[in-house]
Amino acid sequence: MIPVDWKSLFEPTLISTRESGHVTALRNSRTVRIEWRDCDPAGIVFYPRYFEIFDASTAALFERALGISKFRQLKTYDFAGYPLVRTRARFLKPTRFGDDVVVDTSISFGRSSFEVEHRLSRAGEICVECSEKRVWVVRDSATGGIKSYPLPDAVLKMFGQ
Amino acid sequence: MIPVDWKSLFEPTLISTRESGHVTALRNSRTVRIEWRDCDPAGIVFYPRYFEIFDASTAALFERALGISKFRQLKTYDFAGYPLVRTRARFLKPTRFGDDVVVDTSISFGRSSFEVEHRLSRAGEICVECSEKRVWVVRDSATGGIKSYPLPDAVLKMFGQ
Amino acid sequence: MIPVDWKSLFEPTLISTRESGHVTALRNSRTVRIEWRDCDPAGIVFYPRYFEIFDASTAALFERALGISKFRQLKTYDFAGYPLVRTRARFLKPTRFGDDVVVDTSISFGRSSFEVEHRLSRAGEICVECSEKRVWVVRDSATGGIKSYPLPDAVLKMFGQ
Amino acid sequence: MIPVDWKSLFEPTLISTRESGHVTALRNSRTVRIEWRDCDPAGIVFYPRYFEIFDASTAALFERALGISKFRQLKTYDFAGYPLVRTRARFLKPTRFGDDVVVDTSISFGRSSFEVEHRLSRAGEICVECSEKRVWVVRDSATGGIKSYPLPDAVLKMFGQ
Repeated sequence: MIPVDWKSLFEPTLISTRESGHVTALRNSRTVRIEWRDCDPAGIVFYPRYFEIFDASTAALFERALGISKFRQLKTYDFAGYPLVRTRARFLKPTRFGDDVVVDTSISFGRSSFEVEHRLSRAGEICVECSEKRVWVVRDSATGGIKSYPLPDAVLKMFGQ
Repeated sequence: MIPVDWKSLFEPTLISTRESGHVTALRNSRTVRIEWRDCDPAGIVFYPRYFEIFDASTAALFERALGISKFRQLKTYDFAGYPLVRTRARFLKPTRFGDDVVVDTSISFGRSSFEVEHRLSRAGEICVECSEKRVWVVRDSATGGIKSYPLPDAVLKMFGQ
Repeated sequence: MIPVDWKSLFEPTLISTRESGHVTALRNSRTVRIEWRDCDPAGIVFYPRYFEIFDASTAALFERALGISKFRQLKTYDFAGYPLVRTRARFLKPTRFGDDVVVDTSISFGRSSFEVEHRLSRAGEICVECSEKRVWVVRDSATGGIKSYPLPDAVLKMFGQ
Repeated sequence: MIPVDWKSLFEPTLISTRESGHVTALRNSRTVRIEWRDCDPAGIVFYPRYFEIFDASTAALFERALGISKFRQLKTYDFAGYPLVRTRARFLKPTRFGDDVVVDTSISFGRSSFEVEHRLSRAGEICVECSEKRVWVVRDSATGGIKSYPLPDAVLKMFGQ
């Protein structure tokens, strides 16, 4: 359904390697309260909840750059989202309900994809590191599905590219 | 809180590389219905839900090998869980509510950690691949936290190691 | 956005009172494994997870009656879903990961709404009771939103009404 | 497992009726961003997510009154949580990702239980109303389970009771 060049997307890269070298200066940082709902019977964050937090952090970065919420972005730039093609994460320290953690997010752009890195820390100590590769997709009228598409210049410009 | 040798845990490994070469013959396969609750406004699975599915698949593999549920395992083997230290995933094809997918899970053991691989497919076509590294932890009476601990021989034996 | 007659929808009714007296004979029963992901630091199900289970149980009842998944239903009957307008639940006994619970679901129809009742039990003992009122909605081309709409006869017929 | 007087707990009450007349002046209000993760394929909030939001709102109210996070509360007041025995909700208007909603929360106390009411609104318009009944529970050394227990005077005092 997503006819992208998977081979190139999945070449092994180190967590700190960017695909294109176009490292943007734009970053975003936000504080997140770890809630009871995020934690499991061991009393610590159930790790899929971190990915929920990171997904919202990516959205927050786009909202900061573009000045409008994701809901408005989808209408304004006529795309269908930026689904993940790959992610990896390391869990260095557990966090638990009541913790206020900081998520620092940075981005680098390819042609129709981009990489995002998140660092989640508590009191200055990194607890989780995550790297994502996402593709910019549009509706494909031919198939009814979605297909990757070059990121609009208007979007890149808002990120200072 | 988890005083493990992180450096060794995070050495880069290919998704198909096992840490120790102790590849167990035991595998598990289960069918999962993708539900409405798993999907996002794009109509496809919201990717953190895949990690919820994989976490349950790891639990299902242990339940199959040990013959008791995770709840009983925690009491029987006196440990505090097997939290993730690392995961990575590739999303090859989107899935959506109403899909019945198959998750194939395999495991290989280290001393106090193990690696799990999941392959989620629909109609024989792989949609998501995931690799996890987890540590076996026990309560640390000294700190009140948790610490890594060698996997009990009784557990390894049940896996046919 | 949903221009229904809210006043009539929210008149107080006892949990066992059906709006119309049209009690269908069709019921559905399914077994659900309570997973680690469903539980909180107290070791028991985090109650919003019960609503996720009940939502899937309502979908399972419709799939059983209509013979197709919710994904196909949305296309076949050209509607936009059946969002909740009201729910209530009683939590009688806690359940925890590893429990296999049974969810019994029954339904009764109004004109453009219906009521669903769920009983979640473990080993024959009721743990949670839930009642939902949902409306059948279609896309409203005038507003771009959704609006309530009479349930199609074809759907009612499949339920034996 | 929770040997409370269920009969009295479940007597029908209107959504606006408090059990004891002890209506506290303490309220809490917080703004919540509706995220992509909260929404379903219809593009609106998947209703179990509202209960996650309300659970966090109850915790926020307690944190405001007691001055410490839920994690510290559990240690300070030596209790095991305040699980729900009953909830009911009305969904008046759908909300969607990108919406900033306000949740107003108020509480009234019984002896070993309390009722919480939440009103979720967007731009001054109420979208969801919810009422919860919760019990204060402690570990029961006799059974290994939990049992209801009178709310400590120290807690009630912090709420201005």
